[in-house]
Amino acid sequence: MSKPRKLRSRKAGLPPGTLVHIGEIKTARTAFSVIDFDEQGLQERQLPDPAALARQPRQHATRWVNVYGASSPADLASMGSTFGLHPLVQEDILNTAQRQKLDAYEDYLYLVLHRYELQPNSLDLVQDQISLVIGRDYVLTFQERPSQTFEPIRQRLRGGHGSLRKGGVDTLAYSLIDTVVDSYFGVIEQLNDYAENLEDKILGRPGPGTLEGIHQLKRCVSQLRRNLHPLREVLGTLHRDAGDFFRADIQLYVRDVYDHTVHILESLEDLRDLATGLLDVYLSTVSHRVNLEVRALTVVATIFMPATLIAGIFGMNFKEMPWLANPEGFNYALSLMGLIAVVMLLLFWRRRHI
Amino acid sequence: MSKPRKLRSRKAGLPPGTLVHIGEIKTARTAFSVIDFDEQGLQERQLPDPAALARQPRQHATRWVNVYGASSPADLASMGSTFGLHPLVQEDILNTAQRQKLDAYEDYLYLVLHRYELQPNSLDLVQDQISLVIGRDYVLTFQERPSQTFEPIRQRLRGGHGSLRKGGVDTLAYSLIDTVVDSYFGVIEQLNDYAENLEDKILGRPGPGTLEGIHQLKRCVSQLRRNLHPLREVLGTLHRDAGDFFRADIQLYVRDVYDHTVHILESLEDLRDLATGLLDVYLSTVSHRVNLEVRALTVVATIFMPATLIAGIFGMNFKEMPWLANPEGFNYALSLMGLIAVVMLLLFWRRRHI
Amino acid sequence: MSKPRKLRSRKAGLPPGTLVHIGEIKTARTAFSVIDFDEQGLQERQLPDPAALARQPRQHATRWVNVYGASSPADLASMGSTFGLHPLVQEDILNTAQRQKLDAYEDYLYLVLHRYELQPNSLDLVQDQISLVIGRDYVLTFQERPSQTFEPIRQRLRGGHGSLRKGGVDTLAYSLIDTVVDSYFGVIEQLNDYAENLEDKILGRPGPGTLEGIHQLKRCVSQLRRNLHPLREVLGTLHRDAGDFFRADIQLYVRDVYDHTVHILESLEDLRDLATGLLDVYLSTVSHRVNLEVRALTVVATIFMPATLIAGIFGMNFKEMPWLANPEGFNYALSLMGLIAVVMLLLFWRRRHI
Amino acid sequence: MSKPRKLRSRKAGLPPGTLVHIGEIKTARTAFSVIDFDEQGLQERQLPDPAALARQPRQHATRWVNVYGASSPADLASMGSTFGLHPLVQEDILNTAQRQKLDAYEDYLYLVLHRYELQPNSLDLVQDQISLVIGRDYVLTFQERPSQTFEPIRQRLRGGHGSLRKGGVDTLAYSLIDTVVDSYFGVIEQLNDYAENLEDKILGRPGPGTLEGIHQLKRCVSQLRRNLHPLREVLGTLHRDAGDFFRADIQLYVRDVYDHTVHILESLEDLRDLATGLLDVYLSTVSHRVNLEVRALTVVATIFMPATLIAGIFGMNFKEMPWLANPEGFNYALSLMGLIAVVMLLLFWRRRHI
Amino acid sequence: MSKPRKLRSRKAGLPPGTLVHIGEIKTARTAFSVIDFDEQGLQERQLPDPAALARQPRQHATRWVNVYGASSPADLASMGSTFGLHPLVQEDILNTAQRQKLDAYEDYLYLVLHRYELQPNSLDLVQDQISLVIGRDYVLTFQERPSQTFEPIRQRLRGGHGSLRKGGVDTLAYSLIDTVVDSYFGVIEQLNDYAENLEDKILGRPGPGTLEGIHQLKRCVSQLRRNLHPLREVLGTLHRDAGDFFRADIQLYVRDVYDHTVHILESLEDLRDLATGLLDVYLSTVSHRVNLEVRALTVVATIFMPATLIAGIFGMNFKEMPWLANPEGFNYALSLMGLIAVVMLLLFWRRRHI
Repeated sequence: MSKPRKLRSRKAGLPPGTLVHIGEIKTARTAFSVIDFDEQGLQERQLPDPAALARQPRQHATRWVNVYGASSPADLASMGSTFGLHPLVQEDILNTAQRQKLDAYEDYLYLVLHRYELQPNSLDLVQDQISLVIGRDYVLTFQERPSQTFEPIRQRLRGGHGSLRKGGVDTLAYSLIDTVVDSYFGVIEQLNDYAENLEDKILGRPGPGTLEGIHQLKRCVSQLRRNLHPLREVLGTLHRDAGDFFRADIQLYVRDVYDHTVHILESLEDLRDLATGLLDVYLSTVSHRVNLEVRALTVVATIFMPATLIAGIFGMNFKEMPWLANPEGFNYALSLMGLIAVVMLLLFWRRRHI
Repeated sequence: MSKPRKLRSRKAGLPPGTLVHIGEIKTARTAFSVIDFDEQGLQERQLPDPAALARQPRQHATRWVNVYGASSPADLASMGSTFGLHPLVQEDILNTAQRQKLDAYEDYLYLVLHRYELQPNSLDLVQDQISLVIGRDYVLTFQERPSQTFEPIRQRLRGGHGSLRKGGVDTLAYSLIDTVVDSYFGVIEQLNDYAENLEDKILGRPGPGTLEGIHQLKRCVSQLRRNLHPLREVLGTLHRDAGDFFRADIQLYVRDVYDHTVHILESLEDLRDLATGLLDVYLSTVSHRVNLEVRALTVVATIFMPATLIAGIFGMNFKEMPWLANPEGFNYALSLMGLIAVVMLLLFWRRRHI
Repeated sequence: MSKPRKLRSRKAGLPPGTLVHIGEIKTARTAFSVIDFDEQGLQERQLPDPAALARQPRQHATRWVNVYGASSPADLASMGSTFGLHPLVQEDILNTAQRQKLDAYEDYLYLVLHRYELQPNSLDLVQDQISLVIGRDYVLTFQERPSQTFEPIRQRLRGGHGSLRKGGVDTLAYSLIDTVVDSYFGVIEQLNDYAENLEDKILGRPGPGTLEGIHQLKRCVSQLRRNLHPLREVLGTLHRDAGDFFRADIQLYVRDVYDHTVHILESLEDLRDLATGLLDVYLSTVSHRVNLEVRALTVVATIFMPATLIAGIFGMNFKEMPWLANPEGFNYALSLMGLIAVVMLLLFWRRRHI
Repeated sequence: MSKPRKLRSRKAGLPPGTLVHIGEIKTARTAFSVIDFDEQGLQERQLPDPAALARQPRQHATRWVNVYGASSPADLASMGSTFGLHPLVQEDILNTAQRQKLDAYEDYLYLVLHRYELQPNSLDLVQDQISLVIGRDYVLTFQERPSQTFEPIRQRLRGGHGSLRKGGVDTLAYSLIDTVVDSYFGVIEQLNDYAENLEDKILGRPGPGTLEGIHQLKRCVSQLRRNLHPLREVLGTLHRDAGDFFRADIQLYVRDVYDHTVHILESLEDLRDLATGLLDVYLSTVSHRVNLEVRALTVVATIFMPATLIAGIFGMNFKEMPWLANPEGFNYALSLMGLIAVVMLLLFWRRRHI
Repeated sequence: MSKPRKLRSRKAGLPPGTLVHIGEIKTARTAFSVIDFDEQGLQERQLPDPAALARQPRQHATRWVNVYGASSPADLASMGSTFGLHPLVQEDILNTAQRQKLDAYEDYLYLVLHRYELQPNSLDLVQDQISLVIGRDYVLTFQERPSQTFEPIRQRLRGGHGSLRKGGVDTLAYSLIDTVVDSYFGVIEQLNDYAENLEDKILGRPGPGTLEGIHQLKRCVSQLRRNLHPLREVLGTLHRDAGDFFRADIQLYVRDVYDHTVHILESLEDLRDLATGLLDVYLSTVSHRVNLEVRALTVVATIFMPATLIAGIFGMNFKEMPWLANPEGFNYALSLMGLIAVVMLLLFWRRRHI
C-alpha cells in the first residue's frame, strides 16, 4: 500500500480538479466494454476508446460501461463529458489511492470500493480500487486492471432470466457491490487458516519466524479493519439515504450487504484479539525458555562445581593430607563428590527447581 | 467457529436470494413438529415434511412450528411460501454462520439468536444458531440440531395452566428468547469456575499449561463478548420498537431479558479483566523465577569459585610455597576456603541477594 | 461475587415471574420493621411476618418498611399484594445477584443498589444488595442481612426535628440513596491507603507478595468501576426523569449525589491508573534485579576464572616450566592473578558494568 | 490528593446540607476582603468576619468578596444568608475535595475550579480549590489559603482604566476564570521540562531512579488529565448556556478560555504518550543490558573454561603423558590454550555475538 | 514543539486581549505583500509596513495580503484596525502556539492551520503556524517565516487563466487551505519510508539505535495525529457551516479536502499500529537473543565442566588410583571427557536445546 501513496504528493500545489493519475499503473492497456440491456434483450461490445462510447446508440434501457485500467486523463475527460461527471469525480477515478467513500451528486452516486486479494504465503494484501458511478439509467465501473470479479454478473445478465435483467440500474448496482463485499470473505477465510496454523505452531514449538508471522497477521488485519470502517459507512449511507436511486425492495438487500460488513468486521476483531493473544503467548514462551536454559545451567554448575573443588583439594601438594595414603582414599573422594551432587540435586528438587 | 465461515465464500458471485446452505450440517435428519394451542386446548404433531404443514388444518389460535436441522433449500422454500417469508429470510435461515440480528418485516419479525454450550474441559464453545420468526398468529423456530433447549416450554404448554397457554404469540416468543438468553448463565458460571481454578494455579505454582489455559479463556471470553453485543442490540430494539408484536405487559419482561444481557456482558468484562490480570501475573511470575534461578547459580558460583581457586593455588608445583610443609597446612587451606565462602555469603546477605 | 451467580442458572427454563431466591442466603431470620411518620409524630414497630403488615393501620402519612434477609417467596408475594408490586419486582427483590438499576412503574419506582464493604486485609469486596421501592406514600427497603446502614436515618427520624420528618417520601428516599452512595467513600479511602502502602513497598523493596497485592487491587477496582457505571446511570435517570416522585427541591440533592458517583468513578480511575503503573514498575524492577544478579555473577566469574586458570597452569606436570624453581615464583603467580583480576574489574568499570 | 479524601467519609450518614468542613485545613486564619467598584470608583476593605459584610453599605455597582481559608461552617452560613446561597452551595464551598463543576442556580452560578502548582523536584501536584459564585451584581471567591493568584486582577482594578473596571460582573468573572486556567500553562511547561530531562537520561544512561521518575510523571499527567475533563466541561457549559450571566461579547472570551483547556488537554496527551514511550524504551534498555551482561559472561566463560581444562589435563598424574618431558611442552600447552581461545572468539564473532 | 509553549506562561495574569507575541521568533524581518486581482487584472506589491496597506488604493475586487513573521504587536494592531479584526484574533495571530481552529466572526472567518515539514534524518517535525482571515473581499495570510508554500498559487494567479483569478475570495481561500493540507502527504510519505526502513532493520538485525528510531517514529506520529483531529474538525465545520463565505460549488471541493484529512489520519493510524508492532517485535527479538546467549553459555559449561572435573580427579594425589600406571590411562581419560561431552550434547539435542 505504500507505493500508491508515494505518488500522492505529486499533486501538491496543482490546481484542484487537475486530472493527474495517482497510484501504480497496473495495466498498460485501457479496455472499455459496454453492455446495454433490459428485459427485451442485451447487447455487448468492446470499444476502442471512450469517444466511441458517446457515438454508440443505445437500444436497451440500462447501460453498463466497464473500464479496466483508466489511467489517462484524456479518456476520463471524454467519459466525463459523455455522462456529465463532475471534475472532482473524474479526478477521484484517476486517483487509485482513495478511501472507500460515497459521494452523492444530483444525477448520480459516486462510490469508491476496494477489492482485496491475499497472496497466500506472504500475507500480502493486494488492493484494487473499483469506482462505481450509479446514474439514472447507466452504471459505470472502473477497475485498475482486467479481472474476473464481475464475470458472474455478466453471465447472469447474458443468461437473460433471473431478476438481474429486468431489475435495471439499482439491481445491477447492488449486485456489483455485493460481489465486491463478498470478496472479503475469501480473504477472511485465508487469514483464519493462517492464524490457526500460527496458533498450532506457537502452542507447539515456536521459532523466530513465527514472530514475523504474527507481525504480518496483525498488520494485515489492522489494514483491513481500517478499510472496513469506511466501507461500512458507505453501505450504511447507501441503505439510509439513497432512496432516490434504490427502490425499497432493493434497499432490503443493501441492508443485508451492510450486515455482511459488520460480520466481517467482527471476524477481523476476533482475528486481532487472537493475534494479540498469540503474541503474548509467544513472548511468555520465550521467557519460559530462558528460564529452562538458566535452570539447566544451574543444575550443571551445581553438580560439577563442588566435585571439581573436591578434586582440587585432593590435588593440593600439602605434605600431610588425610586419605591420600589410604588405599580406599580415591574411592572415598569419588563417593564424596557423588554424595554432594545427590544432596544438591535433592535440595533443588525440594525448592522444586528441577 | 472457523468451520462454518469456511463455507461462506461458496456464495460469492451467486445471485442474492439463491438458497444455499452455509455452515456445518449438524444433523442428517430434518424434523418438523407443530404445536397448535390456545386457552381451549393443545394439539401436537410430528410432520414428515413441510408440505404436510400447509395441508395441516389449525384448530387453535397459535401455531408453533419447530424445525431441527433445516439444511435443504427445498424445505425452506416450501415453508417460505406457506408463511409468506421473504427470500432473504429463507436465505438467512439456511446460513448458520449469521450474526445475531433482528429484521422487522411487515407481517413478522425475524430473529437470529445463538445458544452456547461449553465443552467443560477444552473450553470449546459450541454455538448453535436459532432462527425465530414471530408472526401474527404463529412462531417458527429453526434449530441446527435436535436439542432439549425448548423442552421446558413445551412442558409448560402441555401443562395447560400458567400464563403461557393463554398468552399467545408474544408470550411464547418472549419465553423462547428468555430460554436462549438464560443458557448464557450456565456458560458464564463454567467460565468463572475455570478462571478461579486458573487463578489458584497461577498464584500457586504455574506451569506452561496454564499459559494455554489463559489464552483459551481470553479467546472464549472475547468470542462471547463479540456475540453479546449484537444480542443486546437485538433485545434493545425488540424492547423499544416491537410494540406491534409485543403487548405492553410483555415488553416489561423483554426489558428484563435485556437487563440480563447487560449483566452477562458485565460478567464477561470482569472475566476479561481477570484473564488479562492473570496473564500479567503469570508473566511476572516467570520473570521472577528466572531471577531466582540466576540467583541460585550466582550463590553456587560465588561459594565454589574462590574455594576452587585456593585448591588450585595449593596444587601448583612451585618448589617453595608456604604452608605446604606445615602439618596444619591442609586445615589452614580448608579453613580459608570456608572463611571466604562465609564472607561471600554475608556480602550477598547484606545486598539482600540471598 | 462468584457464589451468588452460581445459582443463577437454577432459573433457566422456569416460567418468568416464578419467585425463586437466587444468591447466597446471608441471614436465616427474616425481620420486618415499620416506621410510620409525618410532621405530627412517629410510630415504630417490629412485625413477625408480612401478613401483619397488611393488617397494620397507618396513622401517619409516610410509611417506611424495612426488611432484612427476604429470601422466602411467600413473604415477597404477600408484600407484593399489599403494595401492588409487579411480579418482576418481586422476582428481582429475591434475586440478590442483580445489576444496580432503576425501573419506573406507574405507581412506584424500583431501585436496586449495592452497598460495599471492604475486608481490610484480604481486599475482599463484600457486596450487599439493597432494593428500594419508592411509592407515593411509602418506601420499602430490602437488605440481605441485618446491618447498621440506615440506623443514622432512623435516629434522625426519631429525633423529630430536621427536614427528614416533614419531608415525606422523597426526602426519605433521597436520604437512603445518599447513605448507600456515601458508603463507597469509605471503600475508596481504604483502597487508597492500600495502594499507597503498595506503592511504598514497590518503590522500596518488592517481594512476590506485592504482585498478588497489585492483582487484588486491580481486580477490586475493576469490579467497583463496573458496578459504578450502572449506579451513575441510575442516579442520572433519577435526576432527569423522576420528577413525578421527587420534588424540584429534592432533585437538586439528587444531582449532588449524582456528582458524588462521578467523583468516585474518577477516584477509581486514578486508582486503576496507579495499579497499572505499579505493575509496570514492579515488572521492570524484577527485570532490573535479574540484571543485577547476572552482573554479580559475571563479576565473580571474571575475577576467579583467570586466576583459576593460572593456578591450573602452574599445577601442570611439565618437566620444564618457568618460575617453578624460582623462590619468588609463588609470589609472582599470586601477583599475576591479582593483576589480572584488577585489570578485569577496571575493564568492567570502564564499560560501567559494575 | 489522598489526604483530603480521607476525611470525606466523616459525612456518611449525616443529613444532607449539614455544614462540615472536608479536606485539609491549609490556613488557620480566615480572611475576608471586599472590593466594590464601577466606572466611577473603587473601594477596598479587609473585614474581620462575614457578619460585617452584611452591614457593609455598597457604594459601587459591583462587589467582589474574596475569602481565604473558609473552613468554619458558621462563617459560611452567615455569608450564605447575606447572598442567598443554597445550603448545597455552602456545603460544597466547605468541602475542598470537590470535582470542578458548574451548578446553575436561578440567581447565581456556582463554579468549583482547581488551581495547580507543581513542586519542582518531587513532581508533587499541589491542588487548591477555588469556589466562585457569580451573582447578578457580585462575585464571591473562596480560596483555601492566602495566595497571589488574583493579585494581578486587583492591580488592574485599582489601576482604574482598562476594560475590567467598566466591564462589571461578567468581565471580572471571566478574568478570574482566565487567571486560574492560565496557571495550568506553568505546570505543563514544568512537566515538559521534566519529561525532556527524563528522555535525555533514558536515551543516554538510565538508572533505577528514572523508573520512579517515569512513574511520577505518568501519575501527575494522569491526575491532571482526569481533572481537566470536568474543567473543559465547565467551560463548555459556561460558553453555551450561561448567556444569562455573560454578555455575548464576553462569551467570545470564554470560548477562548475553553480553547485553552482543549490545548492543555492535548499537551497532556502528548505527555502521556511520551511517558508511555519512555517506559517502553526504559524497559527494553534494561532487557538489552541483561543481554550484554550475559554476553560478557559467555565470552569470559568461553575463553577460560577450555584453557582451564587443558591446564587440568596436563596436571593429571598419569605415568605416561605426551609432551610432559618435552622442553617445549609447556609452551605447546599455553599455545593450545591461546589457540582455542582465539577460535572460540572467532566463532562468536561469526555468530555476531560479540 | 516545547520551545514555543515555554513562553506561554508569560501571559498569565495579563488582561485578555493584551497583544504579546508568544512562541519562537523564526524570522527577524517582517514582510508584507499584497496581491489585488480579479478577472480583469492583477497588481502585486511589497509593502514596508502595515500602515502603507491602509493607504493602498484597491483596483481589483479581491485583495490577498500575505505577512511573513508577524511578531510585532504594533503591526498587528494596525492591520487589525484596517480590516476590523477582533482583538482576540489579533492576539491569536501573534500567538504561534495555537491549536488549529476555526472561529467564525460576523464579517470574516479566522482559521489557524499548521504546515509540517520533516527533517529527513532526525525525524524532527517542524511546525509552522499559518493564520488565515477570510473576509468578504479579502484574504489575509500570516506565516511565521518566509516560505515557498503559497508560491504555486501566486504563479497560478499571475498566469491569469484558470479558475483561480475569476473565482474570487472563496476559491483563493480554498486553494490556500488545500495547499496546506497537501503538505501533509509529503510528511506521511517520508514517515512511511522511514518506517519501512525500520521494519527491514528490525526483522533483520536490530541494534540499540533502532529502539530510539521506533520511539521517534511513535512520537512523531502521535504528535501529527493529535494535530490532525482539530484540522479535521476545522474542515468539517468549514464544509458544513461556512455557507456564508463559500459558494455551494466550492463547498464540494472543501469536502474533498476534508476527505483528505480523514485519509491522512488513517495513514497515521496505520503507522501507529506499525510502530507498536515493531516495538513488540524488537522487544521479543531482544528476549530471544538473551535466550540464545544463555543457551550458548549453557552448552559451553556443559561440555567443559565435566571434562575439567575428570582432569581434576586424575590430578589428585592419592597413592593408589586406577589407570595412572596404565600406559593407555591418559587416552582413557581423554576419551572419557570426549564421551561425556558427546553425551551431554546429545541430551541437549534431545531436549532440542541446541
